[in-house]
Amino acid sequence: MIKRVNSIYILLALVALILYVFLYAILKTYSKVGFSEVNNVLQENTGQIGKANACFVILTQNFKLEGVRKSMRQLEDRFNRNYNYPYVFLNNEPFTQEFINFTRAMTKAKIEYGLVPKEYWDMPDNIDLELFNKNKDEMVKNGMRRSGSLSYRQMCRFYSGFFYQHELLKKYDYYWRVEPDVDFYCDIDFDPFVYMKENDIKYGFTLVLYEDLITIPTLWDTVKNFIRTYPHLIVKDSIIEFITDDNGETYNLCQFWSNFEIADLNLWRGEAYTKFFDFLDKKGGFFYERWGDAPIHTIAAALFLKKHQVRFFEEIGYHHRPFLNCPKGNKFQYKCLCNPDDSMGKFQLTNLVAILFSTNFIINQFYMWFILILQKITK
Amino acid sequence: MIKRVNSIYILLALVALILYVFLYAILKTYSKVGFSEVNNVLQENTGQIGKANACFVILTQNFKLEGVRKSMRQLEDRFNRNYNYPYVFLNNEPFTQEFINFTRAMTKAKIEYGLVPKEYWDMPDNIDLELFNKNKDEMVKNGMRRSGSLSYRQMCRFYSGFFYQHELLKKYDYYWRVEPDVDFYCDIDFDPFVYMKENDIKYGFTLVLYEDLITIPTLWDTVKNFIRTYPHLIVKDSIIEFITDDNGETYNLCQFWSNFEIADLNLWRGEAYTKFFDFLDKKGGFFYERWGDAPIHTIAAALFLKKHQVRFFEEIGYHHRPFLNCPKGNKFQYKCLCNPDDSMGKFQLTNLVAILFSTNFIINQFYMWFILILQKITK
Repeated sequence: MIKRVNSIYILLALVALILYVFLYAILKTYSKVGFSEVNNVLQENTGQIGKANACFVILTQNFKLEGVRKSMRQLEDRFNRNYNYPYVFLNNEPFTQEFINFTRAMTKAKIEYGLVPKEYWDMPDNIDLELFNKNKDEMVKNGMRRSGSLSYRQMCRFYSGFFYQHELLKKYDYYWRVEPDVDFYCDIDFDPFVYMKENDIKYGFTLVLYEDLITIPTLWDTVKNFIRTYPHLIVKDSIIEFITDDNGETYNLCQFWSNFEIADLNLWRGEAYTKFFDFLDKKGGFFYERWGDAPIHTIAAALFLKKHQVRFFEEIGYHHRPFLNCPKGNKFQYKCLCNPDDSMGKFQLTNLVAILFSTNFIINQFYMWFILILQKITK
Repeated sequence: MIKRVNSIYILLALVALILYVFLYAILKTYSKVGFSEVNNVLQENTGQIGKANACFVILTQNFKLEGVRKSMRQLEDRFNRNYNYPYVFLNNEPFTQEFINFTRAMTKAKIEYGLVPKEYWDMPDNIDLELFNKNKDEMVKNGMRRSGSLSYRQMCRFYSGFFYQHELLKKYDYYWRVEPDVDFYCDIDFDPFVYMKENDIKYGFTLVLYEDLITIPTLWDTVKNFIRTYPHLIVKDSIIEFITDDNGETYNLCQFWSNFEIADLNLWRGEAYTKFFDFLDKKGGFFYERWGDAPIHTIAAALFLKKHQVRFFEEIGYHHRPFLNCPKGNKFQYKCLCNPDDSMGKFQLTNLVAILFSTNFIINQFYMWFILILQKITK
């Protein structure tokens, strides 16, 4: 009796799941945005109000337009409509007129659109293609996220060593890195750029997490070689304890999640970091492994900055799926629409659940099962 | 072979679902907002800028604070920060200090907090309790949404016949009804209140859908009786064809979805509507059935207003789960963050899918199955 009833419900569940996958596919087909007939006045550029020599940097692609607009709207609503700091959009392909029009409509601030030069993007000649492919395929086999992507590696390398050299960024001292599809939860009632300048801060972050060792197996050894080669470039009284628990023997994998960054461009343009990046880049780890700009910026901040030059912007409520920072307590919560208990570090369980059970994860999972079952049945 | 493999995947799916329910429950437990220690300055009231004698009306409860703040933030960002129209909050229980502080922090406009008088809320003495309970239980058995709720009926009756008489609303001519947890997708670059005044518009809507006949079986007969009793109150050249396809014989169930309304308070305060509401209220259909304020306002607009006095505010991108209005074409899309193809009426399939497969629906469904299975197993 128990068995029969269970089977019925199990069957019902499976039928629902399969239906779900089909209907989701239909839904996706129907929900393409019809932008072609749009033709309207854009917002007027009313000039910068904020007092810092700073800009937003967004490296993106044309198809991410909706995510870019979502991030921009929140950035404008919560902060920039009172400051009008300019935007610099970068892309390894030319931006479409649609992308330009629809982003221009989101702000009164100036926007510049730039192309990433090929020498900042393409794989350098010294990379052994065979070794690159062999390592990449192995990482894919091990199920490492984004490990099969060349463009993701190019993005990491660009943000590690080139964006601050870009023609459009040369005139600026500070930048705020923005990604498509992020959320800003709180009114930002102060100017982080001016705050950094006044307090000699060079690097600001909101989220911290662990890097996957599999993406950077030889990074720390390379860093140790660098330190031995250029001991005079390393700063004392730094946040080095943040990245190593054994006096530099190993990297503890802690990293500032660099999809959010407010930082001083001259930090990256200086002698120390320039030497550091060149040293790393020669090893080819951006391609042979999958070195991220997050661990590299973090390690650089720990090597080249004093403690007081690195700041946790806790008052900036920020969300990049699946992690978020929501300011805790007293005055912050009035200005925020988020739950401090969802913040990173407070309840890791919540974050775990958020990753594992996000809608996309469920859909992908169901879809995968469905395909697997189909394969088995049709064999 | 086929059977064994299938069983494994079916089992895997069920295990995942059960895990999901448990983890969801844990997630919910951990994500309560810790508001107690908040203690901050509020936004300054900088006075009304908009030129109309108008306000926002929000009937809500203390526990809906987060949803209210979400609606307010979007209303402020997209419209009201340029107009500072005041808010009137109403509740059938006193608002907590927490609710007051956290809503005050969302706007520079004036907010007034009022109690719904008992005579506007409580079940009138003439309602036969036994009949009310019998009908209610029958509707619940038929699976009618919200049919078991007394407070939902009280809310519908309050919005049908009383809110415009409330002490705090007496001074206003126009109102914009706002619900918790709604979205406003587009910059609203004009003043809908002033627009209504200048164009003699008395009722504005954004969403239209069908009412469930089961909630209003005798409403139309009552309306026909009213029309026979007071023929002189009925206006010619109205939108009567919108609500009846057979010259008034039957109601076609079309209704403006009244969770969004921008309307003239004097429409409801006038002789015609006052007589209309009293006529309906005497029949007890708010309690014996589940008459909604949406069909009642819609029918009233069709009886008492001329065509030009009713307006579709198509340029206001609006979302009340699971339906939305997203302006189509040319100039609108630049100011909006939504997909016109998701709008009501365009692809009904999308809406259907949205209802059936919303996260809440899935969670509830899984939970229900889980409970059912548990019950069967433990029997």
